[in-house]
Amino acid sequence: MPDFPLPAVVLLSGGLDSTTTLAMARAQGFELNAMTFRYGQRHRVEIDAARRIATQFGVARHEIVDIDLRAFGGSALTSHLAVPKARSIDEMATGIPVTYVPARNTIFLSFALAWAETLNAGDLFAGMNAVDYSGYPDCRPEYIEAFERMANLATKASVEGRVRVRIHTPLIRWSKAEIIRHGLSLGVDYSLTTSCYDPDPVTGAACGECDSCLLRKKGFAENGLSDSIAYV
Amino acid sequence: MPDFPLPAVVLLSGGLDSTTTLAMARAQGFELNAMTFRYGQRHRVEIDAARRIATQFGVARHEIVDIDLRAFGGSALTSHLAVPKARSIDEMATGIPVTYVPARNTIFLSFALAWAETLNAGDLFAGMNAVDYSGYPDCRPEYIEAFERMANLATKASVEGRVRVRIHTPLIRWSKAEIIRHGLSLGVDYSLTTSCYDPDPVTGAACGECDSCLLRKKGFAENGLSDSIAYV
Repeated sequence: MPDFPLPAVVLLSGGLDSTTTLAMARAQGFELNAMTFRYGQRHRVEIDAARRIATQFGVARHEIVDIDLRAFGGSALTSHLAVPKARSIDEMATGIPVTYVPARNTIFLSFALAWAETLNAGDLFAGMNAVDYSGYPDCRPEYIEAFERMANLATKASVEGRVRVRIHTPLIRWSKAEIIRHGLSLGVDYSLTTSCYDPDPVTGAACGECDSCLLRKKGFAENGLSDSIAYV
Repeated sequence: MPDFPLPAVVLLSGGLDSTTTLAMARAQGFELNAMTFRYGQRHRVEIDAARRIATQFGVARHEIVDIDLRAFGGSALTSHLAVPKARSIDEMATGIPVTYVPARNTIFLSFALAWAETLNAGDLFAGMNAVDYSGYPDCRPEYIEAFERMANLATKASVEGRVRVRIHTPLIRWSKAEIIRHGLSLGVDYSLTTSCYDPDPVTGAACGECDSCLLRKKGFAENGLSDSIAYV
């Protein structure tokens, strides 16, 4: 590493995974540039959480990007489809859930790639995870590798040899329990994070029954801990 | 081909190349779904041109997507950098021009991929061209191939085998003269299109001196034709 910190772009949703990823980028000595998307998700509480986390980490820059959601029809996260509740881990592992948003990670990583180029950054960090939640196609290692290969052919900075694009997804093969354990060792305050797909619209409290809440609670329980965020 | 037309998503900027590409998708029997981006480009006249062209072609759907430009700093197309004028073709071929927008085609194709998935479409058409304008990294065949490979790993529709994503860039190895000749054979009315990087802010007339105007005029001249749009 050079004497000054290299800039990295970190996708920050305000959730447990992306916050742990931010802490890992910090631990590796990168200058942190956090990017958050407002894409018509039903839970604005995520944006507020991302803001608090970015402030607490003292990031160099925090971009909140508005995404036009018209291209994103047909997901329970952006429409009136019901979020599934109280499913077992086995049920979650069957097929691709209705919370899937078409090409979401491709769009997010593309914006991160554009911003990284203007910062002369090659390192992109994202909290994708393929273990607890195997259903999303754009959370798998083979997808990330293909995106990285494409990205290195896409930009002026990479083609001119000034940067080599690397998509870091350090959590991709970890369980939720492993993610939490590692994050705690790096000093992450998980009370700042939010994971729920269907939070209370007034209080922002987590529902406790969607797939994301259930996986989060299981991750804390497997570490012998209880989760400190508010549940309905 | 089945009895009913297969849906395709066509990137439509309102320019000569994308309009020719739209005509080629029509000639191949696809149902046309046009996608146009409003990304803070200085020339809003492009959006108006895209609307007129979409109407004239009778497209099934036309989405105009707003893109947050904050991630796109540092291009003459989205900022106050000067657009180069009166350059020779040799000068244009040297290096990547200041009109390059970071990761633009990657972002555009990512949105097209998302929309295509909601339409159950696998065919994406885009008017990239690598011959007249070799400087843009995201107009090269090797970039398009890498994007296509990534796209087939990215979406629920492709992973479940319902669609195979194909990125059609039929103009990629054609000269501007060849593009115009082929478009005319398909009945394209080029008076509806706009190519200028720096049009008159009041009248919308083309400057006639930016790289894009010069390449356009050369393409018409090589066909023994004059261009019917208004120039300053």
